[in-house]
Amino acid sequence: MSVVTFLTDYGLRDDFAGVCHGVIARIAPRARILDITHGVARHDVRSGALILRRAVPFMPAGVHLAVVDPQVGGRRRALALRCAAQDRLLVGPDNGLLAPLAERLGGVLQAVDIGCSPLRLEPLSASFHGRDVFAPVAAHLASGTPLADCGEPLDPAQLVALELPQARVEQDSIVAHVLTVDHYGNVALDVEHDELAASGLRLGREVAVNGRPALHAATFSDVPAGGLVLYEDGYGVLSVAVNRGSALHALGLELDAEVRIEPAP
Amino acid sequence: MSVVTFLTDYGLRDDFAGVCHGVIARIAPRARILDITHGVARHDVRSGALILRRAVPFMPAGVHLAVVDPQVGGRRRALALRCAAQDRLLVGPDNGLLAPLAERLGGVLQAVDIGCSPLRLEPLSASFHGRDVFAPVAAHLASGTPLADCGEPLDPAQLVALELPQARVEQDSIVAHVLTVDHYGNVALDVEHDELAASGLRLGREVAVNGRPALHAATFSDVPAGGLVLYEDGYGVLSVAVNRGSALHALGLELDAEVRIEPAP
Amino acid sequence: MSVVTFLTDYGLRDDFAGVCHGVIARIAPRARILDITHGVARHDVRSGALILRRAVPFMPAGVHLAVVDPQVGGRRRALALRCAAQDRLLVGPDNGLLAPLAERLGGVLQAVDIGCSPLRLEPLSASFHGRDVFAPVAAHLASGTPLADCGEPLDPAQLVALELPQARVEQDSIVAHVLTVDHYGNVALDVEHDELAASGLRLGREVAVNGRPALHAATFSDVPAGGLVLYEDGYGVLSVAVNRGSALHALGLELDAEVRIEPAP
Repeated sequence: MSVVTFLTDYGLRDDFAGVCHGVIARIAPRARILDITHGVARHDVRSGALILRRAVPFMPAGVHLAVVDPQVGGRRRALALRCAAQDRLLVGPDNGLLAPLAERLGGVLQAVDIGCSPLRLEPLSASFHGRDVFAPVAAHLASGTPLADCGEPLDPAQLVALELPQARVEQDSIVAHVLTVDHYGNVALDVEHDELAASGLRLGREVAVNGRPALHAATFSDVPAGGLVLYEDGYGVLSVAVNRGSALHALGLELDAEVRIEPAP
Repeated sequence: MSVVTFLTDYGLRDDFAGVCHGVIARIAPRARILDITHGVARHDVRSGALILRRAVPFMPAGVHLAVVDPQVGGRRRALALRCAAQDRLLVGPDNGLLAPLAERLGGVLQAVDIGCSPLRLEPLSASFHGRDVFAPVAAHLASGTPLADCGEPLDPAQLVALELPQARVEQDSIVAHVLTVDHYGNVALDVEHDELAASGLRLGREVAVNGRPALHAATFSDVPAGGLVLYEDGYGVLSVAVNRGSALHALGLELDAEVRIEPAP
Repeated sequence: MSVVTFLTDYGLRDDFAGVCHGVIARIAPRARILDITHGVARHDVRSGALILRRAVPFMPAGVHLAVVDPQVGGRRRALALRCAAQDRLLVGPDNGLLAPLAERLGGVLQAVDIGCSPLRLEPLSASFHGRDVFAPVAAHLASGTPLADCGEPLDPAQLVALELPQARVEQDSIVAHVLTVDHYGNVALDVEHDELAASGLRLGREVAVNGRPALHAATFSDVPAGGLVLYEDGYGVLSVAVNRGSALHALGLELDAEVRIEPAP
């Protein structure tokens, strides 16, 4: 049984995600659809890209469909990609959404522009390419249609990349940035486990986060309720949380904001 | 494999939709359940009916279960219907929720009152007929139980209709109404593609929407962020949006509010 | 086909529930996953436990996975349990979440500590045991792995219980408590159908709820919009609602608050 994983910013209040399920089920009745989330913040391509990158390695191999598409109906390309690792296929808009995942999967072996795919639904709407372009192509791929039959070949070197902030080490502190935020208000930074190890910086148990005392520990429950904790999240990413609270609010942060981590004074 | 599609106003914070999935899976273990949405505004029968009508044509044929049921436990009837087109079956309360879809599917060939169905769960609750009446009947239909075995025959002419506002043409303007709103704040009007064509009205590229300048274009990305756009939505319905914003808030609208569209002055 | 039901407080805005689906699907590709809800209030073990207890009897028999886990990464145990009734298996943290359901299913026949299960994912994260411990064990159980192979045997008498408030009868009134609240603001009390019958108290049609007049009736639609109604909810639990409104707000209640029900003066 083939698998289609599905991530969007459609939310679940409307029928948009449900209708895409219907489109896929009509074309590929035997494919299983696994929703990663439809709760990406509206038009937040970067958060969608980062969630996709961290989630997909836990999903079965298959077709990975993702739609966060603020330029729908405009000139951005629509893509289907084959990646080096595990023969995974990616489908979505060419706005950087698929780029971090593709890189993690060993890079793109084959790229196809599906904007005018013979497999899209007609009449094509101007604003719902999830239903009319991306879901049909993903479903046909899940049914065994060869990638090359989905559209026009494209040079993988031409794909749109995703710009990400870059944490830096300054003397004995790290200047990181808010990369993503979950619905608890836990803040993930642009520092991964391996990067922290490679930086040579040794963080002790007592640290300061933007000047506020925090414990560098394994998880929330190592600090009392309301306490600030610096920890590695479930995906190996350096993160800041308030036990039973919101680090986002407690520290007054927003996406891309700087977060300075240094030894406690 | 048979399909049950499912739409309600239950939301996903509680277990109501999940329990109905369980009831269906126990009765019809091989049926596939496809959620259209459970995010219809509470008790908003009309929005539920319109979302159902536009979404179901994209879903596989099967049993289409819908529950938005403010009069549950009262005297409203409970229905199972067979429609003319594509042998689709509809299950839900007799409050207009199913009516627009049934009409789009060519009308009702056979109607059954399932309020006292022998297939309902006992003891019957007074307030959760989704679980006790509608889901079990939908599941039995998906398993092949004949419609006539689900309850008492009913004259299709007796079904409750749904009242909808009617857009009108006044000189060179359209006076339309807010029919539905999605979670982005995009506003769908009571004017469909074919109706606009038939009206004889020619809308230019520059229009006024309730006196405010707007572009009549294909999609959001044709206007700058914050710009107002009049467009045909993914379902062929004339709609108003603010690119990366909410037309609902920008224009101070609510359901049924009048929206006047005229050439730019 | 085996079934895994799934309840958490993860919400659907992030990828947490979706990633657990992926983990289960990789280990047990033929298991069907039925979401009960992921909308339990964050860290609200008691609401999770009560929703689980009422919902699971409507779900197919199988593995019942539940994660509301404020002490994740701390010293709380992780559990897999076999219950007396219907050969149902339960998986989740040992914080009372599974206790009311286990009791309703006839008690625990066999308990296993899965905190160091050989089936868990490595590297183990400190904060996402839903993905790394609970989902993998549930999936292996759904694939037929014997319970005893999932971890270390544990004495069922040692499991953490759940403390619940106890309604009492005072003269001709009931002093109950707010047990759970649904997203409509309907308030479920700690009085079930059988308990009310056994109390000997006869409630007439006109009652007072915290001093406010209410109708003791079958359902919402027995009172006008805005009216207060005392009724048995869909799960046989005495409840208070405002027709088309929120009883929680109208009465100024919160979890555990006392609710006095007496005959109308």
